[in-house]
Amino acid sequence: MYEFRLWRRLVFVGLSAFPLTPLVDDRVDESSFGRLVKRLSSADVDSIAALGSTGSYAYLSATERERVAHLAVEHAGETPVFIGVGALRTSHVVANIKAAERAGAAAVLLAPMTYQVLTPNDVFELYRTVTQGTDLPVIVYDNPGTTHFTFTLDLYERIAALPGIASIKIPGVPTDPAQAIERVNSIRSVIPETVSIGVSGDAFGAAGLNAGCDVWYSVIGGTLPKPALKITRAAQEGRFEDATAESERLAPLWNLFAEMGGSLRVTAAIAEMLELAPEKCLPLPIQGLDDVQRESVARAVNAIGLGK
Amino acid sequence: MYEFRLWRRLVFVGLSAFPLTPLVDDRVDESSFGRLVKRLSSADVDSIAALGSTGSYAYLSATERERVAHLAVEHAGETPVFIGVGALRTSHVVANIKAAERAGAAAVLLAPMTYQVLTPNDVFELYRTVTQGTDLPVIVYDNPGTTHFTFTLDLYERIAALPGIASIKIPGVPTDPAQAIERVNSIRSVIPETVSIGVSGDAFGAAGLNAGCDVWYSVIGGTLPKPALKITRAAQEGRFEDATAESERLAPLWNLFAEMGGSLRVTAAIAEMLELAPEKCLPLPIQGLDDVQRESVARAVNAIGLGK
Repeated sequence: MYEFRLWRRLVFVGLSAFPLTPLVDDRVDESSFGRLVKRLSSADVDSIAALGSTGSYAYLSATERERVAHLAVEHAGETPVFIGVGALRTSHVVANIKAAERAGAAAVLLAPMTYQVLTPNDVFELYRTVTQGTDLPVIVYDNPGTTHFTFTLDLYERIAALPGIASIKIPGVPTDPAQAIERVNSIRSVIPETVSIGVSGDAFGAAGLNAGCDVWYSVIGGTLPKPALKITRAAQEGRFEDATAESERLAPLWNLFAEMGGSLRVTAAIAEMLELAPEKCLPLPIQGLDDVQRESVARAVNAIGLGK
Repeated sequence: MYEFRLWRRLVFVGLSAFPLTPLVDDRVDESSFGRLVKRLSSADVDSIAALGSTGSYAYLSATERERVAHLAVEHAGETPVFIGVGALRTSHVVANIKAAERAGAAAVLLAPMTYQVLTPNDVFELYRTVTQGTDLPVIVYDNPGTTHFTFTLDLYERIAALPGIASIKIPGVPTDPAQAIERVNSIRSVIPETVSIGVSGDAFGAAGLNAGCDVWYSVIGGTLPKPALKITRAAQEGRFEDATAESERLAPLWNLFAEMGGSLRVTAAIAEMLELAPEKCLPLPIQGLDDVQRESVARAVNAIGLGK
């Protein structure tokens, strides 16, 4: 048990970087994806979360997803790889987990995708079924912006008590530092100490880590690992003001995320601009940013000096 | 053109009944589904919309969906069959439409499913791509409760102008009759006269038809066609008060829909109760109603006299 806890504390911490899964002509661009993953591994992120929301998991076929999982592990080197396994139907989630096992994933990431509204009990039973069927650690993916499902503290408690739950990815923290600490502590107080807490919503990365989150599940970290690592390492070393300052330097990006309907389209535009991904790399029907929006993104990226 | 318009006015009118797609042990229960479809055809509904939200289209694999489309056409006799073809990715929608064509569908029904938030332009381009690729009429499926996408009147106008759009399924009408007429007229004023307007949200069926909707896209009509037909025929014959009275008689059902998170779980419980579907016929993670809720449903069904 001690070793298990230690292992958890080593794996589900720091910067977990979410690469895009670029498409070209409606097919996965395997070479771009491989390069993105390698870039993250070389940058020394703590883990790579492939097929997250940023990795368009919800849009890919089971076959494509298994292939991407294999490519991720192949290009990640020693870096642990987490694989997003969410699907609308429980049996499809279970099949995706088997595929992630075959690929050599270190953990799986599961959001309760919805079409029909799910009840808390539906979601609990989903995690119960899934954790019973795999030895892989499971990260609970609380992403209300895409799933439209709202976790309560009570549901965190019930799910985190299931054997096999390794971490909870929360959607953000309050902007006030004291309230952020209070929020993280309130979650911490209802979950086992073996379960790590990770912040997402890149604008909240520094605030979340400073408030005691163990890990930052980061969209921008999947495409621009260096500034994301700067924030993460500062927070981990207790240099909270440095973490905040670097996050504030990136505020033009966070503002674009807010203005342009979330992080995905902006991050894809950045990756395309830096030639890390082919043009129009998102799955249709998502058209991506228009030319005027792309100019705003280019200006922000250049002003911050991220294009180098 | 005249014949085409006439044909539209004959097909996208009256009662369009949405059967469940019952599952047993996580597989489509083909015999139950076939019987449900036959029951609708025998009851003389005007069309059968298989693989709607009620038919769990979002949860089924492409292979299951093609099989269900074939079964629907096979058991529907002379009744036109509409097939739900929605998917998160445009290329998957296109593939589902090809499958619906092979099955002999009379039309396809397309909701803009979302995981990432879609822009109005994303959704317009989806319908443009789809209508360009098929000769089948397309029903625009505006179902914000499941898609979380909100159509504006402007977007209705742009999409309805695409050749191939046959009908718009709207999510309901205001309860005030004058406001309901105003709402239907406001939509009518921006779309071609060849495009029919259909109301959904069963509690709004009578109000929508009375307000001038051409068709009622009905959940309950897929399991209990008789009372749904009574409402529809009354409204079609101008006996608006009779339509309202029958809808009010069914109010306990509409109340259960509101209380129990929508129509699907209640309708599935009714189908199970009447042995039209096997127990626990919904796709997991949807658990369906619990025992206490099922008792409430049974009481309502018996009080209304629908169990006969």
